[in-house]
Amino acid sequence: MIPDTVFDKIDEESLPEKLILLRGNAIISVMVTQTDFRVRYSETDGQRRAHHSHYPVWFEMGRADFCRQAGFDYKNLEDTGFYLVVARLECQYKAPLEYDDLVRIETRLVSLSRKLMTFEYRVINISQKEALAGEGKTVLVCIDRQGRPASLPSDVTGRLQDCITPSGGKLHASIPGG
Amino acid sequence: MIPDTVFDKIDEESLPEKLILLRGNAIISVMVTQTDFRVRYSETDGQRRAHHSHYPVWFEMGRADFCRQAGFDYKNLEDTGFYLVVARLECQYKAPLEYDDLVRIETRLVSLSRKLMTFEYRVINISQKEALAGEGKTVLVCIDRQGRPASLPSDVTGRLQDCITPSGGKLHASIPGG
Amino acid sequence: MIPDTVFDKIDEESLPEKLILLRGNAIISVMVTQTDFRVRYSETDGQRRAHHSHYPVWFEMGRADFCRQAGFDYKNLEDTGFYLVVARLECQYKAPLEYDDLVRIETRLVSLSRKLMTFEYRVINISQKEALAGEGKTVLVCIDRQGRPASLPSDVTGRLQDCITPSGGKLHASIPGG
Amino acid sequence: MIPDTVFDKIDEESLPEKLILLRGNAIISVMVTQTDFRVRYSETDGQRRAHHSHYPVWFEMGRADFCRQAGFDYKNLEDTGFYLVVARLECQYKAPLEYDDLVRIETRLVSLSRKLMTFEYRVINISQKEALAGEGKTVLVCIDRQGRPASLPSDVTGRLQDCITPSGGKLHASIPGG
Repeated sequence: MIPDTVFDKIDEESLPEKLILLRGNAIISVMVTQTDFRVRYSETDGQRRAHHSHYPVWFEMGRADFCRQAGFDYKNLEDTGFYLVVARLECQYKAPLEYDDLVRIETRLVSLSRKLMTFEYRVINISQKEALAGEGKTVLVCIDRQGRPASLPSDVTGRLQDCITPSGGKLHASIPGG
Repeated sequence: MIPDTVFDKIDEESLPEKLILLRGNAIISVMVTQTDFRVRYSETDGQRRAHHSHYPVWFEMGRADFCRQAGFDYKNLEDTGFYLVVARLECQYKAPLEYDDLVRIETRLVSLSRKLMTFEYRVINISQKEALAGEGKTVLVCIDRQGRPASLPSDVTGRLQDCITPSGGKLHASIPGG
Repeated sequence: MIPDTVFDKIDEESLPEKLILLRGNAIISVMVTQTDFRVRYSETDGQRRAHHSHYPVWFEMGRADFCRQAGFDYKNLEDTGFYLVVARLECQYKAPLEYDDLVRIETRLVSLSRKLMTFEYRVINISQKEALAGEGKTVLVCIDRQGRPASLPSDVTGRLQDCITPSGGKLHASIPGG
Repeated sequence: MIPDTVFDKIDEESLPEKLILLRGNAIISVMVTQTDFRVRYSETDGQRRAHHSHYPVWFEMGRADFCRQAGFDYKNLEDTGFYLVVARLECQYKAPLEYDDLVRIETRLVSLSRKLMTFEYRVINISQKEALAGEGKTVLVCIDRQGRPASLPSDVTGRLQDCITPSGGKLHASIPGG
């Protein structure tokens, strides 16, 4: 709950989408990426809803877009011999998603160290008045080609450092147009 | 490592598999089900490991076997108009699983109310000296055909009541033959 | 091989995308829809390529877009009690698709009767100089809520009738901008 | 229905399961492997049936078991730098499969050359009186680490050579106990 905050979207298209968060007198820059897609028929189950196992897949799509917008391609990271693996996953399911619903994953990076990064996600059902369909969190670890823990390359942490958003479940609940 | 406990498997095949846990002087009956399968090629990803989004699918298979062993078929539950939906999922990934690895999901029910049930899972890599590959937890909610929260049928809760195991991450770490 | 054909794209945005095919002196209207997406990490396998089982999923996405552009939503069809099921699937794999590759599915309807429809697909790797990554074909049957064969509603066949393209594997190989 | 043939199962457990087919006076040795599993909830779709895109996944499981029974592990093949990729897939869907149905994939190798192998599959719904739920066919190509076409290692073709079954859709329709 951050009742006294004001969001304002910076509009320069060539830069990562960022938000300005005023918390008391402090100005905090917030980067949230949006990944939109439709629920595939193959993703529904016998209850005519998206099966819960697809949310982690969607989170991963959100992460890929976040990294791309932060200035590095996850694919390139793998080409240089570093991999990110999910060490921990949490997901809350709030409302069902049906076939063909237009879904938006909002992704932000809430913490970063040399070996760990934590992302948070919100699943928005655009087709249902932008209802919150779920929330999630993943902790990722960097490993090398042999599967040993490794430090993230410094150019990657450098780019990501500016994109961290302090955690808080409802932070971007009221992004205008979001 | 649970040095001061003794497990003993009850061997009657027609009954749910149960374990006896001595904790201090108390005797606790423990039902843990085992679901074995091999990692499918389609479940691996570019890192040559099982993609993390399959663990929730395997947990669900574990739940199905648990319910079957507890005496009711999830399929029949749906036929009577009740559905279980995952409201919350947690998963920790401990070690990678590769193609064709023989995997065991150990499933137990750790809490039950009229509208909620919580399962815990352990993912064991039989092919790799029974290494612990992951752990998970899901909270399930009962809903009716209209998607409204509903109470579980009493015959279902009746059957499950006897199958609850008090929580505790390492409880069945040393099940003989497990 | 249709060496003596000329394609020309009709540009009115509000209409389904159509192409004009001159075959000898005959003018044939051709509707081809395009569905673009990136290969998900979860769709790759241990060979670092998209697993072949995802192509049918992508064909289905192509079909959904085709129907939408032809003027009816598959979701609405199900709401009225009719379902389309795949009776036959064929797929040829021509070149690998890697993680994050931008892929285009080109979809067209090659035949239609009251109970059957046949779609053909081309899988284009936009990220690799628009290389042809695969081709496919599905035959779909209409069934009712009880799973019995049924005739497609006449408004659906009416809309689709105008969207049929005579078969021919390389027909839209040279769509300008396609 | 193959009225004038007689099948007889060879029973030595350490050998691949083989069948003897008498066709006229000729004795043909037939190897068919069986892979059993239950339809996962996550494999169903909004029609409450297994989504058609899972059949290719099941065929792959059948192939893995076939190779294992023929005396080589597909995983080991990859470790030596050779990969099998699906070049062509065909599938006919005959009857729906529902959640929890016990399914059997029958797999056989119908042709083999140094660079290509063709498998055929039957999908049997054990839970529904062994009804035929589908049939399929895949052509596989051998490639090396660089993705170039390669010849299969001779020890692999040697082992598989004995396991080829002449094609014919209904060949093992009446395998006793099958």
